[in-house]
Amino acid sequence: MSGNTFGTLFAVTNFGESHGPAIGCVIDGCPPGMELSAADIQPDLDRRRPGTSRHVTQRQEADQVEILSGVYEGRTTGTPICLLIRNTDQRSKDYAEIAATFRPGHADYTYLQKYGLRDPRGGGRSSARLTAPMVAAGAVARKWLRMQYGTQFRGCMQQIGDVAIAFEDWDHVHRNPFFAPVADVSPLEAYMDGLRKSGDSCGARVRVTATGMPVGLGEPLFDKLDADIAYAMMGINAVKGVEIGAGFASVTQRGTTHGDSLTPRGFRTNNAGGVLGGISTGQDLEVSIAIKPTSSILSPRETIDVRGEPATVVTKGRHDPCVGIRATPIAEAMLALVVMEHALRQRAQNADVRPPLAPIPGAC
Amino acid sequence: MSGNTFGTLFAVTNFGESHGPAIGCVIDGCPPGMELSAADIQPDLDRRRPGTSRHVTQRQEADQVEILSGVYEGRTTGTPICLLIRNTDQRSKDYAEIAATFRPGHADYTYLQKYGLRDPRGGGRSSARLTAPMVAAGAVARKWLRMQYGTQFRGCMQQIGDVAIAFEDWDHVHRNPFFAPVADVSPLEAYMDGLRKSGDSCGARVRVTATGMPVGLGEPLFDKLDADIAYAMMGINAVKGVEIGAGFASVTQRGTTHGDSLTPRGFRTNNAGGVLGGISTGQDLEVSIAIKPTSSILSPRETIDVRGEPATVVTKGRHDPCVGIRATPIAEAMLALVVMEHALRQRAQNADVRPPLAPIPGAC
Amino acid sequence: MSGNTFGTLFAVTNFGESHGPAIGCVIDGCPPGMELSAADIQPDLDRRRPGTSRHVTQRQEADQVEILSGVYEGRTTGTPICLLIRNTDQRSKDYAEIAATFRPGHADYTYLQKYGLRDPRGGGRSSARLTAPMVAAGAVARKWLRMQYGTQFRGCMQQIGDVAIAFEDWDHVHRNPFFAPVADVSPLEAYMDGLRKSGDSCGARVRVTATGMPVGLGEPLFDKLDADIAYAMMGINAVKGVEIGAGFASVTQRGTTHGDSLTPRGFRTNNAGGVLGGISTGQDLEVSIAIKPTSSILSPRETIDVRGEPATVVTKGRHDPCVGIRATPIAEAMLALVVMEHALRQRAQNADVRPPLAPIPGAC
Amino acid sequence: MSGNTFGTLFAVTNFGESHGPAIGCVIDGCPPGMELSAADIQPDLDRRRPGTSRHVTQRQEADQVEILSGVYEGRTTGTPICLLIRNTDQRSKDYAEIAATFRPGHADYTYLQKYGLRDPRGGGRSSARLTAPMVAAGAVARKWLRMQYGTQFRGCMQQIGDVAIAFEDWDHVHRNPFFAPVADVSPLEAYMDGLRKSGDSCGARVRVTATGMPVGLGEPLFDKLDADIAYAMMGINAVKGVEIGAGFASVTQRGTTHGDSLTPRGFRTNNAGGVLGGISTGQDLEVSIAIKPTSSILSPRETIDVRGEPATVVTKGRHDPCVGIRATPIAEAMLALVVMEHALRQRAQNADVRPPLAPIPGAC
Repeated sequence: MSGNTFGTLFAVTNFGESHGPAIGCVIDGCPPGMELSAADIQPDLDRRRPGTSRHVTQRQEADQVEILSGVYEGRTTGTPICLLIRNTDQRSKDYAEIAATFRPGHADYTYLQKYGLRDPRGGGRSSARLTAPMVAAGAVARKWLRMQYGTQFRGCMQQIGDVAIAFEDWDHVHRNPFFAPVADVSPLEAYMDGLRKSGDSCGARVRVTATGMPVGLGEPLFDKLDADIAYAMMGINAVKGVEIGAGFASVTQRGTTHGDSLTPRGFRTNNAGGVLGGISTGQDLEVSIAIKPTSSILSPRETIDVRGEPATVVTKGRHDPCVGIRATPIAEAMLALVVMEHALRQRAQNADVRPPLAPIPGAC
Repeated sequence: MSGNTFGTLFAVTNFGESHGPAIGCVIDGCPPGMELSAADIQPDLDRRRPGTSRHVTQRQEADQVEILSGVYEGRTTGTPICLLIRNTDQRSKDYAEIAATFRPGHADYTYLQKYGLRDPRGGGRSSARLTAPMVAAGAVARKWLRMQYGTQFRGCMQQIGDVAIAFEDWDHVHRNPFFAPVADVSPLEAYMDGLRKSGDSCGARVRVTATGMPVGLGEPLFDKLDADIAYAMMGINAVKGVEIGAGFASVTQRGTTHGDSLTPRGFRTNNAGGVLGGISTGQDLEVSIAIKPTSSILSPRETIDVRGEPATVVTKGRHDPCVGIRATPIAEAMLALVVMEHALRQRAQNADVRPPLAPIPGAC
Repeated sequence: MSGNTFGTLFAVTNFGESHGPAIGCVIDGCPPGMELSAADIQPDLDRRRPGTSRHVTQRQEADQVEILSGVYEGRTTGTPICLLIRNTDQRSKDYAEIAATFRPGHADYTYLQKYGLRDPRGGGRSSARLTAPMVAAGAVARKWLRMQYGTQFRGCMQQIGDVAIAFEDWDHVHRNPFFAPVADVSPLEAYMDGLRKSGDSCGARVRVTATGMPVGLGEPLFDKLDADIAYAMMGINAVKGVEIGAGFASVTQRGTTHGDSLTPRGFRTNNAGGVLGGISTGQDLEVSIAIKPTSSILSPRETIDVRGEPATVVTKGRHDPCVGIRATPIAEAMLALVVMEHALRQRAQNADVRPPLAPIPGAC
Repeated sequence: MSGNTFGTLFAVTNFGESHGPAIGCVIDGCPPGMELSAADIQPDLDRRRPGTSRHVTQRQEADQVEILSGVYEGRTTGTPICLLIRNTDQRSKDYAEIAATFRPGHADYTYLQKYGLRDPRGGGRSSARLTAPMVAAGAVARKWLRMQYGTQFRGCMQQIGDVAIAFEDWDHVHRNPFFAPVADVSPLEAYMDGLRKSGDSCGARVRVTATGMPVGLGEPLFDKLDADIAYAMMGINAVKGVEIGAGFASVTQRGTTHGDSLTPRGFRTNNAGGVLGGISTGQDLEVSIAIKPTSSILSPRETIDVRGEPATVVTKGRHDPCVGIRATPIAEAMLALVVMEHALRQRAQNADVRPPLAPIPGAC
């Protein structure tokens, strides 16, 4: 109810602040009997980790995950899995001078209004650092879905600021610091270097997909699969827009074009993005998100202080010039958590029903 | 859990099918003591009602709402409010021939895969007719929010198919059948008439806003106000994209531009769309949604039947050539339901905290 | 959250007031494909119905149930099932004079303090009449559990006021108006006739059981099967105590006696009442509840009025001299709803695990 | 949904196993601005702690609580509070030999059937050790309720095995290891010494109360205050019965006696136990629970092993000969958590309603 638990059957309760002693989560509802160790989780955390290139924040965090419960002799027991990540590199003094002013584009003003007090160190609870436990929980969901259904989650960069990125191949994504599906990232490097020197930041557009989707996931009226995806994506720090399938392009489409034809060998197209009536079709999930420019920038900004007086603020700290870059593994994890939740729901409600026909192939 | 209840503290449980005896909802959590009668609800239902112009479906439904519980001597009692709408104009024979085939772009295939059986009459539970009870529930939320905070919800058309609509004035919206904020809708009429004759359909883009917003609504990590808005909007039938504030335009913005400056007299801009860190700033909520073209069209489509054999389907029935048109009052209602939920949550969690500063004016 | 929905995966949302136009419920989460008609529900409603003997309230209600949604061509579709029962015999004038005073033992005082207003007609929302929709929903759960697992629910009277009732045979229960498992109910008739003439009321003790229980239902820490049973039973109007298995008798038992021995042919005893560690053992569920004397009595009572002044109140109306009598079918229904919820939860969480051993027979 | 979170607005998610590295909980929904440190929590943990007298288990655990999040500069921030307790004295070898057999009265059999595997060390997740985080969370709720309303929670022993304990004075409770409200506990000491020597265990009956209760807490139909209390109490390990107010004694009461008369100076009696129609009256909450004899006993017991073959089991380990003794602080904490949840709910739903009359004094 206070918005720190994601999901219901696969419920992830997140805790911690950017500069507190630790961050983490409790996963409640992981099915029992699955082999699980920190080694299953660490690779995804490493992909999200700060300090890995000059294009992201220089904060150094090992982000080592510790499993405190829910695993016995290497297998999940069906009881809550507590994942703990100790914070190590907290330079809280960086934030001392901004405790009394509100940074434009940040949650400083709204947190103080809501709670009457706030933890200003690194943004406290509003920091994107709190996505790390979700990436960890997502890794658990991904393993289960991969073993159970062969479902896989991937993400890539579509645009950084003014630089659009045409899709070449998934294999490129992990070979550059931008999660870009292209062989040559020199234009992106040049763009980012210029941006950093100017003391400014930029937005980004990221695509995430799921392949090997089971048919029938999603509830029909409100907990539609696409509604829950939109909720998950818009909940990621700095996201301002979400599209499923054709997205905003569907505004100018015609019905004769948009509706994906069915054939005995599968759907011909995937304007739906893998969801019809809120329920998965078995096609790939196709999601695209818009991420706003980083609000923490070196350029001075007009603002007010906590007494309501005019002020100027410059954010020193260590920040990502484009928060969208590290959003890719986060968005993958959140998509996996949504699918996991619905996979468990589908079992609860419909396990005794035999579908009257084999699903057609999902490929378009 | 089965996705038929929206909200938790202001929980709306929806029931019914397009061609069953009745549709309706139960509102649980409406604060006691508010004057309420059907006359508070009917005007919003009338704005969503089918059969009101040649540009929407010709199905004739009075959509008369009946209050079955929760109101005593004209006031809410704090107990569940059951709202019932009888279906009257069900031409189920229109749908008889399509029971055995899957209409492209429809939920026919996914419902059958999920449940093993489906009610094909008018789309059954997947019909947009089920938004009527939400419009009714939204009217209750709107009245309470208006009386408590002065919050108001409005929507208008931004684009129909290829025709973009520049905003002129809110007063125009209720004077034409397109919810268009313009004086002259003749281009829209011509466009829609042409579309209808061609047997095709088109998409739309709709804007919804809230003014007079309280500060501090929204939970910080997952039940962010904007995340819940995205969930609510993407859950409306046919919606494929959601934007808050600058939305996808923020991809190409710089941090120096996007972050809204604060002054003692309010924010200078509203790229945030009224939400920072998931919490309302007091500025207007600004939301934009993409609605796909109606899937029920007169043009023949390639598909398969329930045995998996190739087939051709033509949807006769009576349909909206642009479902986006009637989405405007629906989106307003859903936005009101999200704000209502968070208004009650904020009371629960923070009622004893006095904010240390008066909110700055929300206007930009 | 406002306490009008029971269950999560099999969620029953109850609405209505004693003297409003209708009462009913919406069942969300009923698995699809089950044959269902009003004829499956009406017999249970008839067992709870008022006006069937001189020992219960003389209010005449047909309690005819109408299925408004969720069933198509005689089968459940997996969508919400709305069950409606119209109120017919509302003599609201009976209650006019007590609107300004608080009846001892009733919810009059607490409702007014909580909500600031109340519907005094027949107790409004606090009336035991609102158990009728739960009996109806329970009938749906009972059918599914019977078909899926062979689970059966039965209840009987153990004590009425000072008259203890030794168990003879389940077959007697439906042959007398007291749900007493004995052949000769003349002592009960004499006792109740005397009580009614004295203008007083009495308490009762009721036993409910489930046979054919699946093993493994219940969650380990909080949503224990026995905890949820206690919640369900204590939520029935007038219930003041709940026991599982040995109950309060376990206080004076020794560990060597209480712990039920296991043998290859089953448990030797059932002090546990069918639950160990919050999880069903496969033995019969054994539950016992205490029901307080009816608070609506003809004898004058000392009280205060809404201004806080001393007053005397006599409840005329038509009331059960022992509300415990009609509690039997209600308790059966609530037990069924708890088991149904946990049956669906068990599917969600553990459907892929094969238990390493066959359950031993449940019989003791 | 998997039963490891207690509450919704004040939600406590519990994690850990008896012999894992740590146990703990995450509190989500604690109002911001309250002073909080480990010193507020430790005293309650110390009252529940093992190893404090010869009458309880000899396991030595410091039960030192660490606050990992949610507190900044000594005040709660409204964000999740993670409380961690490291396990230190795990003699897992004590349990090695019982991994293959099911102890009568324990959850061994049901856990294995439910999950397909189990952590046998100290009962794993089914251990009463997992009540420690609830006592810690309860301490947070108790502080808030005490500061906000002056509500206080107390518990005492009413009966240990065959020895009934007449109430003398609350002041005695903390002066003996039995939580007995009497000056002379020598009969209890003699009884417990004899029991321990015999290798057997016994049950107990514990009373818990709340004084200074606000009026109007509790939801009317299902989340009744007494229903939630029953749920909380029956969820404590080994509890088999729950009573509110007159409890099972109400079976033989008459309506003229049971219903508590109201006077301008308060209620005359408290048969209701502080709850009418599921809503608090402002009188003291009065709750009584039955706790079964410890199942872990030194006497040999008949059972089966995991292959279903007959076996004999003797539980060595270190156990409480009467688990009821340490149940007292646990039951107090659980009662506080229920009241806290409803205090927050009441704010959400009814904060704008002014009751039409001042509550009458709660004293009887």
